[in-house]
Amino acid sequence: MSLSSASRALLRTRPTTKLRRLAQGGPVATVTSSAPKSAASCPQPNTSPLGQPHFPCVEAHRARESRLTATKQKSSLDEPETGPEPSYARPNPATYQLYHHREPFPLIYYPKPLPSFDIAYETWGTLSPQKDNVILLHTGLSASSHAASTYLNPAPGWWEKFIGPGKPIDTSKYFVICTNVIGGCYGSTGPSSIEPETGRPWATRFPIVSVFDMVKAQFHLLDHLGIKKLYASVGCSMGAMQSLAAGWLFPARVGKVVSISGTARSSPSAVAMRFAQRSVLMADPNWNNGFYYDSVPPHTGMKLARQIATITYRSGPEWDLRFGRQLRAAPPDAEFANNGIRTPALCPDFLIETYLDHQGEQFCLKYDANSLLYVSKAMDLFDMTAPALEALKLQPLTPRVHEEEHHTLESVLPHKTSHSKSHPPPANPPPHLNDLAEGMKPLANIPTLVLGVQSDILFTVEQQREVADALRMAGNENVSYYELGGVWGHDTFLIDLLNVGGAIRGFLA
Amino acid sequence: MSLSSASRALLRTRPTTKLRRLAQGGPVATVTSSAPKSAASCPQPNTSPLGQPHFPCVEAHRARESRLTATKQKSSLDEPETGPEPSYARPNPATYQLYHHREPFPLIYYPKPLPSFDIAYETWGTLSPQKDNVILLHTGLSASSHAASTYLNPAPGWWEKFIGPGKPIDTSKYFVICTNVIGGCYGSTGPSSIEPETGRPWATRFPIVSVFDMVKAQFHLLDHLGIKKLYASVGCSMGAMQSLAAGWLFPARVGKVVSISGTARSSPSAVAMRFAQRSVLMADPNWNNGFYYDSVPPHTGMKLARQIATITYRSGPEWDLRFGRQLRAAPPDAEFANNGIRTPALCPDFLIETYLDHQGEQFCLKYDANSLLYVSKAMDLFDMTAPALEALKLQPLTPRVHEEEHHTLESVLPHKTSHSKSHPPPANPPPHLNDLAEGMKPLANIPTLVLGVQSDILFTVEQQREVADALRMAGNENVSYYELGGVWGHDTFLIDLLNVGGAIRGFLA
Repeated sequence: MSLSSASRALLRTRPTTKLRRLAQGGPVATVTSSAPKSAASCPQPNTSPLGQPHFPCVEAHRARESRLTATKQKSSLDEPETGPEPSYARPNPATYQLYHHREPFPLIYYPKPLPSFDIAYETWGTLSPQKDNVILLHTGLSASSHAASTYLNPAPGWWEKFIGPGKPIDTSKYFVICTNVIGGCYGSTGPSSIEPETGRPWATRFPIVSVFDMVKAQFHLLDHLGIKKLYASVGCSMGAMQSLAAGWLFPARVGKVVSISGTARSSPSAVAMRFAQRSVLMADPNWNNGFYYDSVPPHTGMKLARQIATITYRSGPEWDLRFGRQLRAAPPDAEFANNGIRTPALCPDFLIETYLDHQGEQFCLKYDANSLLYVSKAMDLFDMTAPALEALKLQPLTPRVHEEEHHTLESVLPHKTSHSKSHPPPANPPPHLNDLAEGMKPLANIPTLVLGVQSDILFTVEQQREVADALRMAGNENVSYYELGGVWGHDTFLIDLLNVGGAIRGFLA
Repeated sequence: MSLSSASRALLRTRPTTKLRRLAQGGPVATVTSSAPKSAASCPQPNTSPLGQPHFPCVEAHRARESRLTATKQKSSLDEPETGPEPSYARPNPATYQLYHHREPFPLIYYPKPLPSFDIAYETWGTLSPQKDNVILLHTGLSASSHAASTYLNPAPGWWEKFIGPGKPIDTSKYFVICTNVIGGCYGSTGPSSIEPETGRPWATRFPIVSVFDMVKAQFHLLDHLGIKKLYASVGCSMGAMQSLAAGWLFPARVGKVVSISGTARSSPSAVAMRFAQRSVLMADPNWNNGFYYDSVPPHTGMKLARQIATITYRSGPEWDLRFGRQLRAAPPDAEFANNGIRTPALCPDFLIETYLDHQGEQFCLKYDANSLLYVSKAMDLFDMTAPALEALKLQPLTPRVHEEEHHTLESVLPHKTSHSKSHPPPANPPPHLNDLAEGMKPLANIPTLVLGVQSDILFTVEQQREVADALRMAGNENVSYYELGGVWGHDTFLIDLLNVGGAIRGFLA
């Protein structure tokens, strides 16, 4: 029987002639065995040379705080900056295009309209003379408009593999537009933007936005660009919510809908997982009720929130294959029991822990904390069941731009539900499925691709089936539905070019 | 179509003649419409009467901090106490029995033995003259020895429904012992105990303990009580780990093993979920590297950790049935948009959020934070695969008390694997299953009940199958295996008296 690498790591012994204090990940301290053997000088788990326990994963928060404070102070003196600074704090408008909407913009949940708004966007491919080859690409929670590299910004985008000439979203055929959502922090108006009335960042005085608000703002951009009808509305995760909302709000302006790993009704378990993230973020004293733009942002809360989020983005089976129960390599200052067994640490010790720690660390200064709260909340609020839509007093909108192929709302709304023969309604529908079918009727005439992943724990495969079932029950005879296997969970749409890309390519053709 | 209660809550409008500021859950503030309509005085989401956003869920942390600080100060002056205090800080030894082990106790991961230890325990039923009717009941992470009410402590225990005369664990037949684990905080030695050498609480100078250490300590208690062999070792969740470990360490002293919603090898996804909890707890400044016993404990970190844990204890399907997308009742100071739509809050707003918030609040002063870290880590470390056990240099132990029915280790360890005909080995075993079967050979002759729940996301049903498969592959011909449906997830063992209780009763008979 061969030893697993975890076991090999456990067995990697250290010299026992030196007493080593357990300074996990901190500076190595060795003391010769002639040191006095008081209680404090004997080896202690998790202890520094002075016998005080030492936790590098906690010290990392304080060290980041110090670096950020130093950067902030230098910045206020206009000195050259050192150390980290939130990347969203210095957006570079030279890397994207900006649409400025000057008119007041009404919001669903807010008594006053937004006085104005900006939308940052990027495009790929060439707009056809008839402007009939447009794909509007919607993003997930924390993504920018930079879905793929551009002339203005050659860095790889978040969907680089999927967008380009000959790729699943083929820019030799389509003109692709991707925006940063309202509420975000990558150029579009959000909580970190300046409130016109006060000249200060909105912070948590920013109004709660809904996914429908996000989409309405995007369609103002389309109006500005003179685009009457989309060839397709495409989105993954929260982008799938937007994609469905686009078809619902503007049934005559959306040719096809692609909904990948999304939902038409956020489940309480997804709300729970986002609530846990918001809670740890808001508990960070630096969050300061959202008013941190003059000081150090809640980087620790953001790191902790991202750790939780990362758990929901992948899957247990993936981690079992990728990390198993392997430990990180023994740090130079690891302690070992007399029997040669490595003493476990309360800070990250298993590879799965170092992975989550790393994901949190990488993200904690990349995205605005308030944007995380607002956009995450918008996802929770998304619900296309008929009662929920009625409560919001939402109505599908008739086209702003009239043209010969204009459809009246009556013509696009079927008056009774029907089912394609190959897809009968589910035998035991959950209580809300009829409400969802009723709510989704405006989408009845739009060919829709619904794709889900069986290992997704955030937008579960049951929710994907629910979207497809509700559309079919609403009378949609053109629902393409795929379930993917694999272990990548929710993040599959970022990874599985072959299967996700293939389904999109086939559906768009 | 009838409106869902969520929609009704959304539609519950407030008088619009008064402008109401959104003081979510805080004091009600109403301003007449004659108030000056500056930017600050207009209704703002999440704003107090002064226009500053207001977050009662965050203020709750500060309010708790103030109450705890006041209690601490009064306590130090020996004045009567007011407000909350951690319940574990004042254990009441009159409510349980205590075994004090005076000899040094060697630990797997620690170079020095524990100088001594205490075990708090409670018993139910009557020990037979032959001492052959003993059930040792092992607890989950945060449970005390108080599994059921006793003469000394009439409060209901954590498994009250399952233990008693005529109940599934029938105290008219069995003598039941339940202990608080080493590392815990309810009377047994743990990080909050006094370190003999220093006279101060161990805090994080306490050694890392393993599930095997916990079980060895329990068997010292059995020795003290003169109990040579258990009728059965029974446990749920972490208790199931202990139950398997008891059979493994003392194969000749354990008659039957009951493992409910446990595992023989902690999965990386379970490690990930516990890591997220430890991370938010250790990031609480009050945690102070574990040295908080003289001051205010990390109550906020504990609340956040418990919120995350609660997500892993139940299931999405349960929340869908129980809460759906219902909102909490509108607080008196809720704000409504001009269209009558209630403005959502960033603090708990959906019932699922208030549920998680409440669970965290109820727990945050009930259990010692350091115990949570140590016991949670012990669960992560649990791994019965052969290489992992070899790396720990563990060996099954021969009985300390020799008697006529004494079995030698040779006689209890089968030399080849076999399978009962009704349970062939799995067709596609995961890579570690053979290692697990090899590791679990000492359990080959102990009849074992393995019970799992399909909606459990923490100890998944795949892990239950793994335990049963590995035992069968190890040659165990007496594995009873049940999978329960239902929506209660991991907590099913606390709730489902009919099915969990029935399986235990049938197996023990």
